[in-house]
Amino acid sequence: MRSPFSLPLAEFVKAARGLQPADLVLRNARIVNVLTGEIHPGTVGIRGERILGFGDYRAADPGGEIDLKGRYLAPALWDAHLHIESTMTTPAEFARLAAAHGTAAVVTDPHEIANVRGTAGIRAFHAAAADLPVDVFVMLPSCVPSTPLETAGANLSAADLAPLYALPGVLGLAEMMNVPGFLFGDPLVRAKVEDARSRGVPIDGHSPLLSGLDLNAYIGAGMRSDHECLGKEEAKEKVRLGMSIWIREGTAAKNLDDLLPLVTAANSERFAFATDDRHPWDLLTHGHLDHHVRRAVALGLDPVLALRLASWSSARHYGFTDRGAIAPGFVADLFTFESLEDVRPDLVILGGRRVAKGGKLLVQVAAERMDEGPPFDVRGFDRSRLRVPVPAGGSVRVIEVKAGSLATGASTEPAKAEAGAAVADPARDVAKLAVVERHKGTGNVGIAFARGFGLRRGAVASSVAHDSHNIVVVGTDDVSMETAVNRVVEIGGGVVVADGAAPKAEVALPVAGLMSNASMHDVDAAEGRANEAARALGASMDHPFMTLAFLALPVIPELKLTDRGLVDVTKFDFVSPVI
Amino acid sequence: MRSPFSLPLAEFVKAARGLQPADLVLRNARIVNVLTGEIHPGTVGIRGERILGFGDYRAADPGGEIDLKGRYLAPALWDAHLHIESTMTTPAEFARLAAAHGTAAVVTDPHEIANVRGTAGIRAFHAAAADLPVDVFVMLPSCVPSTPLETAGANLSAADLAPLYALPGVLGLAEMMNVPGFLFGDPLVRAKVEDARSRGVPIDGHSPLLSGLDLNAYIGAGMRSDHECLGKEEAKEKVRLGMSIWIREGTAAKNLDDLLPLVTAANSERFAFATDDRHPWDLLTHGHLDHHVRRAVALGLDPVLALRLASWSSARHYGFTDRGAIAPGFVADLFTFESLEDVRPDLVILGGRRVAKGGKLLVQVAAERMDEGPPFDVRGFDRSRLRVPVPAGGSVRVIEVKAGSLATGASTEPAKAEAGAAVADPARDVAKLAVVERHKGTGNVGIAFARGFGLRRGAVASSVAHDSHNIVVVGTDDVSMETAVNRVVEIGGGVVVADGAAPKAEVALPVAGLMSNASMHDVDAAEGRANEAARALGASMDHPFMTLAFLALPVIPELKLTDRGLVDVTKFDFVSPVI
Repeated sequence: MRSPFSLPLAEFVKAARGLQPADLVLRNARIVNVLTGEIHPGTVGIRGERILGFGDYRAADPGGEIDLKGRYLAPALWDAHLHIESTMTTPAEFARLAAAHGTAAVVTDPHEIANVRGTAGIRAFHAAAADLPVDVFVMLPSCVPSTPLETAGANLSAADLAPLYALPGVLGLAEMMNVPGFLFGDPLVRAKVEDARSRGVPIDGHSPLLSGLDLNAYIGAGMRSDHECLGKEEAKEKVRLGMSIWIREGTAAKNLDDLLPLVTAANSERFAFATDDRHPWDLLTHGHLDHHVRRAVALGLDPVLALRLASWSSARHYGFTDRGAIAPGFVADLFTFESLEDVRPDLVILGGRRVAKGGKLLVQVAAERMDEGPPFDVRGFDRSRLRVPVPAGGSVRVIEVKAGSLATGASTEPAKAEAGAAVADPARDVAKLAVVERHKGTGNVGIAFARGFGLRRGAVASSVAHDSHNIVVVGTDDVSMETAVNRVVEIGGGVVVADGAAPKAEVALPVAGLMSNASMHDVDAAEGRANEAARALGASMDHPFMTLAFLALPVIPELKLTDRGLVDVTKFDFVSPVI
Repeated sequence: MRSPFSLPLAEFVKAARGLQPADLVLRNARIVNVLTGEIHPGTVGIRGERILGFGDYRAADPGGEIDLKGRYLAPALWDAHLHIESTMTTPAEFARLAAAHGTAAVVTDPHEIANVRGTAGIRAFHAAAADLPVDVFVMLPSCVPSTPLETAGANLSAADLAPLYALPGVLGLAEMMNVPGFLFGDPLVRAKVEDARSRGVPIDGHSPLLSGLDLNAYIGAGMRSDHECLGKEEAKEKVRLGMSIWIREGTAAKNLDDLLPLVTAANSERFAFATDDRHPWDLLTHGHLDHHVRRAVALGLDPVLALRLASWSSARHYGFTDRGAIAPGFVADLFTFESLEDVRPDLVILGGRRVAKGGKLLVQVAAERMDEGPPFDVRGFDRSRLRVPVPAGGSVRVIEVKAGSLATGASTEPAKAEAGAAVADPARDVAKLAVVERHKGTGNVGIAFARGFGLRRGAVASSVAHDSHNIVVVGTDDVSMETAVNRVVEIGGGVVVADGAAPKAEVALPVAGLMSNASMHDVDAAEGRANEAARALGASMDHPFMTLAFLALPVIPELKLTDRGLVDVTKFDFVSPVI
């Protein structure tokens, strides 16, 4: 985290009074005042990492005086909820991109790496996220693993999390996804909530479709934000009940069009923007929070309110009173732009430093590599583990996969049998799906069938498989599936496309099987090649890896697959893949 | 302070889910939602001191179900800044009145009693304010004494204040009035600000007419609220710079008409309401914060925004996230009313308890008496100490007093001399003014002349004399002045009207010379009689005691009198009363 207040008070006061020079003076700005909701002309003085105020300041060095000639000056942006792991890059690499897009701070939940490496993973993430130009605040993962129906790399209790609250920049408890566990009084879940409550820290919610009295209980217990509003009426109920609503616009889940019409001047401090999960190609193509602002303005929101949602609303919600706006004593996080109709950060100043201009970084960001590993332990996995015996005339349960949705359907199909085992049937677009446990050496392999990928041959495997991040693999034959899984293991994690015995393309993600130490461009390029390879095998979705990555998440209906077996999410229990 | 969260979480969750009965259910309400800025229909359930949420709750006892039949339900009110001592009654007596007027909480600065009794006074106030139906939060007095030009009962340093931050309900550091001391780097002043900053607690500002770079320095250092905006342009500058503006409507100082036009839906969380100093007759006649709301609505503000200013804005500013609005988990502080055009609290519920109905209290408020004393030590004061030698043909400096203003003018008049001493001259409305030190036994008596009271004979003395609360006395002759002062000393403090050797009327304020243990009605009646007596002696102002009480405050221009002498506030130094 950047310095809280590095200047001695006496020095700040002298500089603010104009008795000592400023470091940076931004003249003739049109100041976007997210506190008052207006735009007014002004000159802003900065000393150290703090804003001195508005007035005719002078810089010690003439190079420190910038005439903005009427350009706009806004507070730099806050992402209210984000999993940096979903960018498949390290915090430093993400920060490079985000800083150039005017981002000052992100509130992250290092929930993916926690599922793989537990508290050591959180600490590694926290260390990798320290001292970046973008402040990476951390909410502690509340649900590792997400359910008891799967094997994750860790099982974090309230006692495990407790010492982590003392780390600088740790703000509270992250998205409480285990809504039934909370409501029905699971003591392990309750203990985490009680501990956060006793500390008086924010707790993030995650309660899609929760409503009525159960929603009252959830909010009243302390879950005061939600980024999982699937519709306008849902968000309306939640905001009336005191929740802050994070309007999410991620790569897969997009809520901005639906929720933005709820925002008014009077309630605009209750809404903020979040990305949740955004992939490299999306970040490289559209940017970060600046994309939210442009889209919101295009949809008709007052630009000053859009910028309030993108800065002050988040900062204030998370307890900050000196960030997220342009005012004396605030951290000097700001950016210039030309047009209210097309907010594109030009000069980006973070903590008083000029860090980017015209989308290019002006500073070096320490390129510290994150440790690779841990090694995958699939306990001698081979294709024999993929065999699914089926009685003659038997059927299989099929997960009906829908592109662009994390929810699935369920159907039953007559099994295609070979030598007493159910196999994939590309003719009906029925592929075999498996989840291979990779953390604990249990040797667990869950198997099911899925429709919707369009694969005509080969297999695709990925160690990005929410939330436990075992290896998920989909394929038309066991050889290709074995090849893909074993290659994922060999490279220490990633995405692999295989055809028969030959790996065809891969994205290496050796940091916990989730992230790469490479640049975002390189990761994006590798993913592009892997996508091409998958399409060559028949894959028909735009983003097959992303869809695959959510098929192992047994908190979203209807049928999901974990290393322990096929889960009927509506019953929260296992069902057999063959009938 | 009322209980922070008395229900075990498990019990709250069950009740909020409707699995256990509520204690109180308010059906068919029109809910004033100050979080979203709208009014919507609903039923509110309450258990213990907390709101369960909106929904079809059932109460265990049929008497706990109230059909509001479409009446409005708003969060109870917050006074953002108040000196309870100015009500001349104890916190308990004030709370009786405030609760009946829909007040949930007040943020107080026990600055008057601190000037008399130091930290013991703050502790006595804090103890007397505990466990009332209205929450009395405390900001620690930052400026005791207000200047080094006077003798107060205490001199509070940062080290003196430090242990008090641990008291329950202490929120931060109160109005930093010593603006020059702060700006110019007085180490004692800076130490208090530094200490509050290091604790991360709110610091209230008090910076009338401060502007430009000095204002930047003051705000940037942490003074983030102000109730001393004398005009609209001043408030506009301050709110743009990140200050929260408390719109004050006290008995003497009234800013609502001037400042209200600045409030918009977009900036309405930056404004709140405060009374600062409100006298018994004003409270009994107009009420408390409800009066602000009615006046604001009459002036055209959206009633929902007016109620936001009167509740959520204050609560949120002072760091609360579960008070000041109607939402699950929030403290159940609310009131019903009939008409948006005339917001008059009917049923008042505080902490889940029905405490008032139709302006009448429904509960007993513990009538704990505050300790009287300390005794006054005027070191054998008598009329001989009032003698002002004057050379033949000499002149006197005259404080020009203006009714309804705390500021004074200055003029020079030929002295009326008797036996070589300057005396009052009722023919020119020139009275003698004295401040008699009463805390430390210094024997100090400051003397000057003042015009504007209209006294034709007699004297008026008061131990309410901001901020040091020595005895201030104005009169036409030394005998009357001696009588008045000595009677104030005899009764342990208060207001006395005397004519010659005879006290004519008095308001006994034996608690630190500032407050009475009597009821507000009794204090008001006594003040009414004293006012009559003063009028009979020629006093021409509506509120001569209040005007008198501010003549010893050497932080407001131009000429003021302390026990140490006549102060030219513009020079911040002493000047002679005779020339």
